[in-house]
Amino acid sequence: MSYQVAVLAGDGIGPEVMAEARKVLKEVEARFALNIEYAEYDVGGIAIDNHGCPLPESTLKGCEAADAVLFGSVGGPKWEHLAPNDQPERGALLPLRGHFDLFCNLRPAKLHTGLEHMSPLRSDISSRGFDVLCVRELTGGIYFGKPKGRQGEGADEEAFDTMRYSRREIERIARIAFEAAQGRSKKVTSVDKANVLACSVLWREVVEGVAKDFPDVELEHIYIDNATMQLLRRPNEFDVMLCSNLFGDIISDEIAMLTGSMGLLSSASLNSSGFGMYEPAGGSAPDIAGQGIANPVAQILSAALLLRHSLKLEEAASAIERAVSKALSEGYLTGELLSADERQNAKTTSEMGDFIANAV
Amino acid sequence: MSYQVAVLAGDGIGPEVMAEARKVLKEVEARFALNIEYAEYDVGGIAIDNHGCPLPESTLKGCEAADAVLFGSVGGPKWEHLAPNDQPERGALLPLRGHFDLFCNLRPAKLHTGLEHMSPLRSDISSRGFDVLCVRELTGGIYFGKPKGRQGEGADEEAFDTMRYSRREIERIARIAFEAAQGRSKKVTSVDKANVLACSVLWREVVEGVAKDFPDVELEHIYIDNATMQLLRRPNEFDVMLCSNLFGDIISDEIAMLTGSMGLLSSASLNSSGFGMYEPAGGSAPDIAGQGIANPVAQILSAALLLRHSLKLEEAASAIERAVSKALSEGYLTGELLSADERQNAKTTSEMGDFIANAV
Ligand SMILES: CC(C)[C@H](C(=O)O)[C@@H](O)C(=O)O
Ligand SMILES: CC(C)[C@H](C(=O)O)[C@@H](O)C(=O)O
Repeated sequence: MSYQVAVLAGDGIGPEVMAEARKVLKEVEARFALNIEYAEYDVGGIAIDNHGCPLPESTLKGCEAADAVLFGSVGGPKWEHLAPNDQPERGALLPLRGHFDLFCNLRPAKLHTGLEHMSPLRSDISSRGFDVLCVRELTGGIYFGKPKGRQGEGADEEAFDTMRYSRREIERIARIAFEAAQGRSKKVTSVDKANVLACSVLWREVVEGVAKDFPDVELEHIYIDNATMQLLRRPNEFDVMLCSNLFGDIISDEIAMLTGSMGLLSSASLNSSGFGMYEPAGGSAPDIAGQGIANPVAQILSAALLLRHSLKLEEAASAIERAVSKALSEGYLTGELLSADERQNAKTTSEMGDFIANAV
Repeated sequence: MSYQVAVLAGDGIGPEVMAEARKVLKEVEARFALNIEYAEYDVGGIAIDNHGCPLPESTLKGCEAADAVLFGSVGGPKWEHLAPNDQPERGALLPLRGHFDLFCNLRPAKLHTGLEHMSPLRSDISSRGFDVLCVRELTGGIYFGKPKGRQGEGADEEAFDTMRYSRREIERIARIAFEAAQGRSKKVTSVDKANVLACSVLWREVVEGVAKDFPDVELEHIYIDNATMQLLRRPNEFDVMLCSNLFGDIISDEIAMLTGSMGLLSSASLNSSGFGMYEPAGGSAPDIAGQGIANPVAQILSAALLLRHSLKLEEAASAIERAVSKALSEGYLTGELLSADERQNAKTTSEMGDFIANAV
């Protein structure tokens, strides 16, 4: 069996962390006798430079021909003067999500044992740990709802966006959240603003309906404003958080920051046929690009998610995850995860990749 | 000169903390020779019980006849089975905001010296303190935008909400944020999602325009997802945060929780003629209602904001704020702000009120 993966390394630290993910994948292929073919394409700022737009037709075609996309990160100061719509992040990510109907975004965030001190939370809260999976709807809601635009003139000129959700859209993402909860701590917290939004009232109704098919999973509803607060006080009481597109954007970033170790967080964006795009949660970090100090773990774990969800290679995925756990638990860490007086033990980007590849 | 204040104590701890605010106001009237008349009206759950709806006509009329509204808090388990639209909070607050065009919501949140340990943040972050004023647009955006509703059937049934902002609406709230910043640390952080929302692109444009009239105030823009994160890492770098209705709901609650002392936070909701509604940031806390242990400080500080913004009695307002600072700095605190081994020094709701009234 042979697989095709489109590699979109992007900008900033993207290419250097991608190199380590490729190193690890190579080991995995050898060990599990897999045949994966890679094709590289420009995306984001580098694509603007080389092709005049953040998501060139050639890149889109390359992704269409692949079984999955391994994505690095995009953006940087060079392209920040561009209009929001033309910037690397927005201009590449939203069209990719829309084009491939990647409606399901999985963002796992866990406070790793031994790394609790990285969390911005008070030590008595972080010491209890947490392990949250944010399941975010990614192709609906106010991101893609029509109409969206402007009308009128002068002081009366107004802009408008439409938040829109159908039963079908809510049901398919809710089902994924409940299925995920069954394999975890069996609790779904659905985030909405049902005291204000018509979309949230429908969201609640549909989620309640789906819950009936999962009697072993506990369901609770929470308003987005309250969710933002409760995550700060008792993050350990959440398991799966089910969110619409906009609320998931906010909640997943809050949780990511609560781990204090963005360089370890990966994410998957899937459609209903198993095709998916896999990327680190952190950004392109242009300030540290090219120095060989970026943490490649998030990119490596994104590759593991790709093997699991799109290529259905569970064993190979677990092998990578075990190798990463080994590195972290043995204190094999990049500098940003070490305190000032331990910093001399920091591993470089490629040392991390080597260690994890060997451990596979 | 005589003033009229409508008092809407509401549910849960509302009536007991309101009693302390009234006690303090009585002292202030004596000391500054003021003549304030109070009229009490039902709101929220108690209004549902007595009149069948959370905001009876009689209450609305009473507010119309007043110079300002002192609001307690509403809601509780007794009314939680009601549809979101009929619940005390939503059913009272949104119509009041809409009816009086209370477009400007001010939510100050400060980490009080000596209370840093209450913050859920890591001690090295909380020890730097923070003092943020959230300026939230309160009568526009996705809360009130039309159309809002449902259409279609079966799996295609969909719900929709409209986010809508005009230049006029953005400009008036932006101006207030910049004016407030001039009296503080001279920095405005405008929160938006301009990489996705048409409303946010217009928001940015208008805010940039208003900024030109305030050359002494620094302006920065931040995406809502990033704001949620940066508040956890470096809350001390924010001064005034300017937000649309929905983003302000989220950000103000996050900051409130970051102080760890919700019982100290007050808020003001104003219209352009100085009329306003003043309320604590916390909820009705039905679990501790009637025990005499609720913190009345937020309600007392709400009364101070009322004197300042609606009655233009700056001296009287400051006198209350100084009295509150004195109480807090002398360790005069209710139980929720004390650690387990200091809890025996906790003051009751009425002891707090007495101390602050005397200190005025
Ligand atoms: C870049 C932006 C459009 C995007 C989003 O809002 O979805 C990003 O914040 C994310 O979460 O992937
Ligand atoms: C009760 C609810 C409608 C309200 C809001 O969302 O504005 C509340 O959360 C608030 O912040 O005052």
